[in-house]
Amino acid sequence: MAEQTPTPKFQGWLSHTPASAEGNMIWGSFEPKLWEADDIDIRITHCGGETPYPCCVGHEIIGHAVRVGENVKKIHVGDRVGVGPQARSCLKAECAECSSGREVYCAAQVGTYGCVYPDGKGKSYGGYGDYNRTHQRFVVRIPYGLASEDAAPMLCAGITVFWPLKRYGCGGGGKKIGVVGVGGLGHFAVLFAKAMGAEEVVGISRSASKKQEVLELGATRYIASSDEGWAEENARSLDLVICTVSGSRMPLDDYLKLLKVGGTFVQVGAPDNGDLPRVNAFALIFNNVNLAGSAAGSPHEIEEMLQFAVDHNVKARVQVRPLSEANQVIKDMEAGKARYRYVLENTKHL
Amino acid sequence: MAEQTPTPKFQGWLSHTPASAEGNMIWGSFEPKLWEADDIDIRITHCGGETPYPCCVGHEIIGHAVRVGENVKKIHVGDRVGVGPQARSCLKAECAECSSGREVYCAAQVGTYGCVYPDGKGKSYGGYGDYNRTHQRFVVRIPYGLASEDAAPMLCAGITVFWPLKRYGCGGGGKKIGVVGVGGLGHFAVLFAKAMGAEEVVGISRSASKKQEVLELGATRYIASSDEGWAEENARSLDLVICTVSGSRMPLDDYLKLLKVGGTFVQVGAPDNGDLPRVNAFALIFNNVNLAGSAAGSPHEIEEMLQFAVDHNVKARVQVRPLSEANQVIKDMEAGKARYRYVLENTKHL
Repeated sequence: MAEQTPTPKFQGWLSHTPASAEGNMIWGSFEPKLWEADDIDIRITHCGGETPYPCCVGHEIIGHAVRVGENVKKIHVGDRVGVGPQARSCLKAECAECSSGREVYCAAQVGTYGCVYPDGKGKSYGGYGDYNRTHQRFVVRIPYGLASEDAAPMLCAGITVFWPLKRYGCGGGGKKIGVVGVGGLGHFAVLFAKAMGAEEVVGISRSASKKQEVLELGATRYIASSDEGWAEENARSLDLVICTVSGSRMPLDDYLKLLKVGGTFVQVGAPDNGDLPRVNAFALIFNNVNLAGSAAGSPHEIEEMLQFAVDHNVKARVQVRPLSEANQVIKDMEAGKARYRYVLENTKHL
Repeated sequence: MAEQTPTPKFQGWLSHTPASAEGNMIWGSFEPKLWEADDIDIRITHCGGETPYPCCVGHEIIGHAVRVGENVKKIHVGDRVGVGPQARSCLKAECAECSSGREVYCAAQVGTYGCVYPDGKGKSYGGYGDYNRTHQRFVVRIPYGLASEDAAPMLCAGITVFWPLKRYGCGGGGKKIGVVGVGGLGHFAVLFAKAMGAEEVVGISRSASKKQEVLELGATRYIASSDEGWAEENARSLDLVICTVSGSRMPLDDYLKLLKVGGTFVQVGAPDNGDLPRVNAFALIFNNVNLAGSAAGSPHEIEEMLQFAVDHNVKARVQVRPLSEANQVIKDMEAGKARYRYVLENTKHL
């Protein structure tokens, strides 16, 4: 076991105002949460990309443990570890979610970034920095055989699509899967669905312009929703659709038509204000379809996904950029330039 | 086997205009669909109640077979039989629904009433009359031990709630089930959920005035959605909610709050124009809930439900009224007087 580091110097890209999210973060020092015996301090090497203000800036953290609390048995100093979108839940025995391995749905959440711990224990800070401190329950081991830059974006974007694919039946293989929107989340949905043995993986996007790159990613078919009659032509053809885009004007009733009887549409893309388009009851009733939503995954589910990625050689498509360029990366991401996810690399710690 | 009747005289309450649905039907003769070798002619004894214009007037038919086609093996003349909401589907081998016992979701439907058969074979007429003619695939046997007046409303109202209760997990027992709206459909949902071994069956209705009768029906708890804070107080308490009411202004986001993480809300009540209230994506995402819809059931599922009703002594709460009073019954039903379902009895045929 490597030697414990005493409290390191916590520094990172800090957002002082909402405008910071537009590429105006400033490098500076911060005070991490109060040290407790279940905590792990991580020297950050990588941090995933898509970080809309204000909910999860700086999640998808990879680094090495430099200090582990006395209660921590599963992680040793020096281990390569990761933190997804969540830094804490209530962890009470009487919590239905925490006691059943569904911490991500605990009603008492502390996000990886930008949240306040209860009982005056400080705030949570994300991965756009040098160090991170997180409770062991939310620190996952990164398996050998997975590059840090590939693992990082899986910790939130990856699990957000991996989990519903598995939960709603893709895992059994032989299924026909649709993926609406092929960006950071959607590209993982295509990769994981293929690796799970889907018979068809259909990329669905508004314009035909993305067709070639989506097929090269591994999709077997592409639907451009700007084509006339696309929904009727492809009606009742898919077992499961993962929707990574959002907004109150997306053609939700048409997407639902793509489902076979008994199929499921899972919304994982979160519109700013939460509004979805109005759903027609008959679209649900006369096709017995399910409109579901799901958030990311809990730590043990993230670990399962990482091992699945190793076993099935799932390789993320990411662009690695230095952490020092964080502000420019945010601007490029907002401009839609990511293919498919930016990963920030803290070169000081490599 | 009893003797076959040649084509009997088909007469019933006929709707000549939309206004007929308000209690202005006229008794008269009609020409049934063209006779084919798979058909069964039924002398009608009972017909269930709720029949909104124009979709399914005169479904839920019970009677005795008086003529059976030469292809028919499962039904003999004299047998007590029933017809639910559906008179025909495509029945083609290449139809995913018809070939898998899910005829109710076949895209080529002929309703029990008010529809036109393909290929010039005539129209479908419902149960507000003396005789009915239906293809054997959609004629079910009524098991011994179930009164005709109890069986009739199960053929559509019953199966519409029985199926989603079973499909979405109530069948395993020990579950907490909510039923929104306790009328014709909802009263069956309470009865079946209890019989399936639910730990809790919670009636949910707008006003507190129905509480006593819903508890007497067998519900273990009652929520009045006119009470302040009802949704928050009962948040994450139910595994499954069956919603038998409809409309674009029902508090759908609040209903969804009642579900445990991973729970399912099944809409079976169909609003006139299909509009449901707008759903907030976060209500789905952060609780991993499913918003599903389901129609009635297919013939083999109806038979399974009828046998379940016999085995578990499920007794419908119905009011039997003579078929001759059909117009008044429609008016009473519209006035909300049914407790919980009217069944018309063709006294000539008892």
